[in-house]
Amino acid sequence: MSRLSTPAKNAASLRAAKPVRVLRSLQKGQQTRAAILEAALGLASHMGLEGLSIGALADVTGMSKSGVFAHFGSREELQIAVITEYHARFEDEVFFTAIREPRGLPRLRAMFERWVRRVSVEVDSGCIYISGAVEFDDRPGPVRDALAGMVMAWHAALRKAILLSVQEGHLQPDADVEQIVFELHGLILSLHHDARFMRIPGALERAGTGFDRAIQFYGTPAGLALDRARPVPTNGAGRR
Amino acid sequence: MSRLSTPAKNAASLRAAKPVRVLRSLQKGQQTRAAILEAALGLASHMGLEGLSIGALADVTGMSKSGVFAHFGSREELQIAVITEYHARFEDEVFFTAIREPRGLPRLRAMFERWVRRVSVEVDSGCIYISGAVEFDDRPGPVRDALAGMVMAWHAALRKAILLSVQEGHLQPDADVEQIVFELHGLILSLHHDARFMRIPGALERAGTGFDRAIQFYGTPAGLALDRARPVPTNGAGRR
Repeated sequence: MSRLSTPAKNAASLRAAKPVRVLRSLQKGQQTRAAILEAALGLASHMGLEGLSIGALADVTGMSKSGVFAHFGSREELQIAVITEYHARFEDEVFFTAIREPRGLPRLRAMFERWVRRVSVEVDSGCIYISGAVEFDDRPGPVRDALAGMVMAWHAALRKAILLSVQEGHLQPDADVEQIVFELHGLILSLHHDARFMRIPGALERAGTGFDRAIQFYGTPAGLALDRARPVPTNGAGRR
Repeated sequence: MSRLSTPAKNAASLRAAKPVRVLRSLQKGQQTRAAILEAALGLASHMGLEGLSIGALADVTGMSKSGVFAHFGSREELQIAVITEYHARFEDEVFFTAIREPRGLPRLRAMFERWVRRVSVEVDSGCIYISGAVEFDDRPGPVRDALAGMVMAWHAALRKAILLSVQEGHLQPDADVEQIVFELHGLILSLHHDARFMRIPGALERAGTGFDRAIQFYGTPAGLALDRARPVPTNGAGRR
């Protein structure tokens, strides 16, 4: 039957078929979209967001270019979808596991250590936030805005964790929250640079030492005592 | 006269013409090469080293593609020449002016402050070291090696300045030199990220505060007293 046959009959048959067929089609569409996104994340990690192209994705997924296009209307839309997905995974791995720790220094430390762990995993693949910042620092537009928005969201979460540490009496009352975010971010950027580009050993430990030093500088006696008394996780993260 | 006329006669006339003509030709060649390199540096700062192409350079300089090719035999050779020139300028601006300061903390501070100043100038154009590290972290080869070599040279200069500060009694005897390089580099990377990509105000001051905090942490009483007593430069650099 042609798609353009009598509207009345088609409408009736569509209504009858709706509950099962449309759902199946939606599920299949979502699965395909997820598969393309997965491939796009892999490509973007290695080649950068600018390395993404509908053609390369079609190759990787074994789909036609028009098939990829049907799910992502433009390269820009695809780039933004990759950033959103990357951020969702970052939040799952780093933020939502760390937030289970008690508020104050334990949570802040958990956020930093999971952040370090994520970057250390990305030494071989590359971090979309860090490479994206360099790729798009000169290119205003929706992709840059999406990237900057995700970085801002993460910095806001860090700021909140630092502020809670001050309120809990673990960091000094006059600790400069923005300054601490700036310094912790610097440790992560230096880790990424040394481990990924320079292939210098020991960068992971240096990032941890940098965090310890910041805590020693900004912490209160009560906060430092609590930090020293923390349990060493069995999975090897945490105390170095 | 054709270039391919009798060799004997040509050789004789070449010998006769040598002192003046060859010198002039060399000078002109060097000037052209310098002009291409200048344009290439500008292009690479904005578009990244990977954005460099013989075609784009020909456009910018008003030369033919073959004219550009005559001076740089390949795109790779051009990229490496840009890195070498960039490094020479970095050394002039940062290292060779800072080295005039007394050894120890004054020289280390001068190196950091001139580094900060250079990055702050590059907020609008981009830093070839930082963008290059992201562009080439996944691409082994001579360009990556040239970039990494320049970063290593600068890190070695920093290490030496830190070590001299320890020897002069300005930093604590057990100060971890590699850790300090790691942290200072992190401040610069965070500055570049926040000022250039995020356009967050205050990053310049935060880099300076981070340096002050490192000095407070690693410094000896004598070093801190010397640092506090430093003259404030009239050009506004230095104390914040």
